Amino acid sequence: MSRERVEAVRAMMRSKGWDAVVLTGNDPHNSEYSAPRWLQAGWVSGFSGEGDLVVTDDHAGIWTDTRYFIQASRQLPGTGVELHKTRVPGQVLIPEWLAAHFADYDSVIVAVDGLGMNAATVLDIKKAMGDKAIIVDAPNMLDPVWEGRPPVPQTPVITLGSETVGWSRTQKLTWIRKWLQDNGSDAILITALDEIAWMLNVRGQDVEYNPVVMSYLLVTRDDSFWFVRKGPVDPGDHETEDSFYELTSDGVSIQDYSDIGVTLSSIVDGEFISRLFVDTSTLNYNLYNILKENIPSSNLTSGKSPVALRKAVKNDVEIAGMREAHLEDGLAMERFFFWLEKMVEAGEPVNEYEAALQLHSFRSGIEGFRGESFETISAYGPNAALPHYVTPESGSAELDARGLYLCDSGGQYLFGTTDITRTIPLGPCSQLEREDYTLVLKGHIDLAKAVFPSGTAGCQIDALAREPLWASKRNFGHGTGHGVGFYLNVHEGPQDIRQNFNRQPLVPGMITSNEPGIYREGKYGIRHENLVLCVDAGTNDFGQWCRFETLTLCHLDTSIVIRELLDASEIEWLNAYNAKVFQTLSPRLPSEIAQWLRKKTLPI
Amino acid sequence: MSRERVEAVRAMMRSKGWDAVVLTGNDPHNSEYSAPRWLQAGWVSGFSGEGDLVVTDDHAGIWTDTRYFIQASRQLPGTGVELHKTRVPGQVLIPEWLAAHFADYDSVIVAVDGLGMNAATVLDIKKAMGDKAIIVDAPNMLDPVWEGRPPVPQTPVITLGSETVGWSRTQKLTWIRKWLQDNGSDAILITALDEIAWMLNVRGQDVEYNPVVMSYLLVTRDDSFWFVRKGPVDPGDHETEDSFYELTSDGVSIQDYSDIGVTLSSIVDGEFISRLFVDTSTLNYNLYNILKENIPSSNLTSGKSPVALRKAVKNDVEIAGMREAHLEDGLAMERFFFWLEKMVEAGEPVNEYEAALQLHSFRSGIEGFRGESFETISAYGPNAALPHYVTPESGSAELDARGLYLCDSGGQYLFGTTDITRTIPLGPCSQLEREDYTLVLKGHIDLAKAVFPSGTAGCQIDALAREPLWASKRNFGHGTGHGVGFYLNVHEGPQDIRQNFNRQPLVPGMITSNEPGIYREGKYGIRHENLVLCVDAGTNDFGQWCRFETLTLCHLDTSIVIRELLDASEIEWLNAYNAKVFQTLSPRLPSEIAQWLRKKTLPI
Repeated sequence: MSRERVEAVRAMMRSKGWDAVVLTGNDPHNSEYSAPRWLQAGWVSGFSGEGDLVVTDDHAGIWTDTRYFIQASRQLPGTGVELHKTRVPGQVLIPEWLAAHFADYDSVIVAVDGLGMNAATVLDIKKAMGDKAIIVDAPNMLDPVWEGRPPVPQTPVITLGSETVGWSRTQKLTWIRKWLQDNGSDAILITALDEIAWMLNVRGQDVEYNPVVMSYLLVTRDDSFWFVRKGPVDPGDHETEDSFYELTSDGVSIQDYSDIGVTLSSIVDGEFISRLFVDTSTLNYNLYNILKENIPSSNLTSGKSPVALRKAVKNDVEIAGMREAHLEDGLAMERFFFWLEKMVEAGEPVNEYEAALQLHSFRSGIEGFRGESFETISAYGPNAALPHYVTPESGSAELDARGLYLCDSGGQYLFGTTDITRTIPLGPCSQLEREDYTLVLKGHIDLAKAVFPSGTAGCQIDALAREPLWASKRNFGHGTGHGVGFYLNVHEGPQDIRQNFNRQPLVPGMITSNEPGIYREGKYGIRHENLVLCVDAGTNDFGQWCRFETLTLCHLDTSIVIRELLDASEIEWLNAYNAKVFQTLSPRLPSEIAQWLRKKTLPI
Repeated sequence: MSRERVEAVRAMMRSKGWDAVVLTGNDPHNSEYSAPRWLQAGWVSGFSGEGDLVVTDDHAGIWTDTRYFIQASRQLPGTGVELHKTRVPGQVLIPEWLAAHFADYDSVIVAVDGLGMNAATVLDIKKAMGDKAIIVDAPNMLDPVWEGRPPVPQTPVITLGSETVGWSRTQKLTWIRKWLQDNGSDAILITALDEIAWMLNVRGQDVEYNPVVMSYLLVTRDDSFWFVRKGPVDPGDHETEDSFYELTSDGVSIQDYSDIGVTLSSIVDGEFISRLFVDTSTLNYNLYNILKENIPSSNLTSGKSPVALRKAVKNDVEIAGMREAHLEDGLAMERFFFWLEKMVEAGEPVNEYEAALQLHSFRSGIEGFRGESFETISAYGPNAALPHYVTPESGSAELDARGLYLCDSGGQYLFGTTDITRTIPLGPCSQLEREDYTLVLKGHIDLAKAVFPSGTAGCQIDALAREPLWASKRNFGHGTGHGVGFYLNVHEGPQDIRQNFNRQPLVPGMITSNEPGIYREGKYGIRHENLVLCVDAGTNDFGQWCRFETLTLCHLDTSIVIRELLDASEIEWLNAYNAKVFQTLSPRLPSEIAQWLRKKTLPI
């Protein structure tokens, strides 16, 4: 199949006179997850991981990183598509590969789908290849060859009131117009989907797990244009019609999604607006070109969108919603672990996938539940050691009454988003498992109870979560924390807690995960994850202080903790946390589960 | 006096037609400390701190930061020179101040001493003022008005053999030529004094505390030119003549210091060398201009000098020397603290300055001692709370049998450099003093025993030394660690351990200080400082590891430690450290002091 698709691309190349085609799996908004329509590299190659595709007359290749090597080595053989490894020493990235491949050519025509690439990526290709490269932007080039290609998604649009999100969209529009004024701009084009959802207090289901609406938002000093309509709204979809009506009443003009290019060309002409601000990290190459052609470069400003930071700092109403979400989510988690323990104790067969389904059914019972915030990782034993384990629908591992089970999951609720990982013993564990379990917990606790000066960035305190592991030369290969949206994407910036040099301070109101772990290939994986809210901790002679408040409410299993590896303050934190979980959740649980939870949360 | 000097500058300005003069206290190599000749801003204004001077027809001002506000407010009144505060909210720096001051002018002539400023500083002025600014580089402009201005220093030059420094200068020249080749350069102009001293294995005393030789070094693929002669060598100075002879034998051509400009103009002309590498962070504006005039910009590469990193990573011979230096230095420190305790116990009068002198005399007894590595901070009680306390020669505080005494000092030895701070109780201490003392020690220990992945930068582990203080909202306002040279500057880069975003990893062989502290204004200051060597800690499944080995050998006083504030591993570290100090030093100390040290180092 893939072989035929690659040949179809080549036939198109010949008919157009192109020497190379570059395709990605990115949507036009550089979203973390793409709707199926945009998984172009995957459709051609048959590779289902994240990767970019290059096709030439005599070569086809997928460029992907270490996370997907095994997957690629299973899926690519027989397709005629070769694997190009990235994030490895000696890597040759696409721009350099193209430059070398066409070294002897005087002129090379490279076609890209400009909707699926941001400008920087294309400019890298131009730079590497020099003057010889002619880049042709061919948006939707696969349409003629991809039969049944999914359309741009159009799911029901709902609106959230200020009783839920704190700031009304009118307040947000006023705020961004003030920012435009301070920034000397006439307009801002917002291209990141979660920023648009936040700005307009709208949510949809256009992208799996991310409750966003595929659209663009142009805000000028006086007007705002939301490019969102992909066709007639389903007659039965009153939600969307009501939402559009509400938005129109608030002065937001509803436009066709596909009109963004035409409209930008016509309105950004110096007459209506001249100085436009864009965030090039989410602006696609297609729109970038339209802007370049229509606006003198001196009138185009690019930088980090101010919405990202403002959105990351939750207001009191959002924080209250997140607390509620964590309470409800915690009840579901405790019901789930109670059920799981009973099943395993009784020797009833349960596999990873069934466990995930059961957790889903507990969450589904919560009013306002809108689906998972990401695909549940339900992983037993060695499977939990795979950093990107996808629990298979059929043939997933059976849980047994020994070793460790890891569950990383989260929910989207009308009033918040959750993300929690628990690793629990299903029976006897080895000394190494107990040690690893305790040291990861120690790191989690040390970060959770950290106090730090106002202005501190995540990379400056990441080591607090790692040093307990480092001390015995253990570590984990992922970040310790990512930002989490309010009923929005479970991964958001601009803050994080990891070994990078991200200067963004942790600001009171930001919600970030705290998720150290450890992974032993072929054996097991451990991760303890709670969401933490950054809060003001007061001011004294030494300055202004911040600390974290843990939002997640679900007990941390203490049965395999090696007490001697924790110091007094860590034990105190653990006991206080579990006590709080019990006090908060038990009145809302059936007495049998509350009794069980009491035992689980006894001080150590 | 200062008033007259400012007027002399103004008279010069009128005669030359200048509108403004900018002077600094920097030497032509952007050294941390300058020889007296280069303290130009201070000579004119009478202000003895670090600051820059601007003189116009109707205004004279010193720009300095928070560290020197008190000093400036004492020294400037009556001079007609005003204080401009930097590193404060709303600061107006020199470029912006000049732009505003001359806002109504069509053309402004700003004269600078290009030897005392690096190019970036001058370019900032140009940028802020725009086209109207004409920058006149007037090197040594003060010569006609500064009677008795000290000459460029010329102290005896000694050489160090490879038995002391590991790498011979021939090896170093070969290494840098290999680097030139790899970097596509024909030559490198080395302007940082400690880099030159390291490259040529030479040392001098041109700058107080820094054993460097004021000079420039130009290394081409085939030749090397050392611009170092400031006049005839003193007939009695055989050391220098011998050194010059040795260097000449190694192919290093000895040149006049003042010829650097002329020589650069003549040899960097595309015939002898064309592609030149410079490090603009230590290149002065005067040389920058000469290079700009003589080399097409495409042939001038600037970046971080490769010498800084290579120099920071000590080889085995240098490490052995540093160990020796710390052993000798530790013996002097223990003799000093023994003496001090006896004096205070006996009620004998000792003031801060006398204590520093006594410490100096113990160090002076060490063979190979070449002077202090910086001015000793001998500070009792509230004086120790001043971050830049200078112990006055007369009228310094008398030590009393209560509270805390802080001593921060270090030695230069032919075989290494030391830097140590101890804070000791002279008698009863308050509960707050004991708490602060213990928490600073806890931070010191946590950093000292840290294990971290290869590739970790100092800013990523700085929090380990701070969190014990942060936990109770205490902090210190300086870095936790700076690099230390081998019988070279006590402050060197490129690594450090502080709250910045310096990406330079800590590499095995680097020596850095570990010096958390706490300062309570009007009360006391506490700092515990050891030097630590970064060492390889092996490789395992999780990657490659590093840790620190503490080099400093001098007991940490435990008498006021609050044991409950330390965890088991911290107590273990402390006891092991003190035991090692006793075992290593006691056989080399008189029995009375060894006995005393045994008690001081008993486990807690």
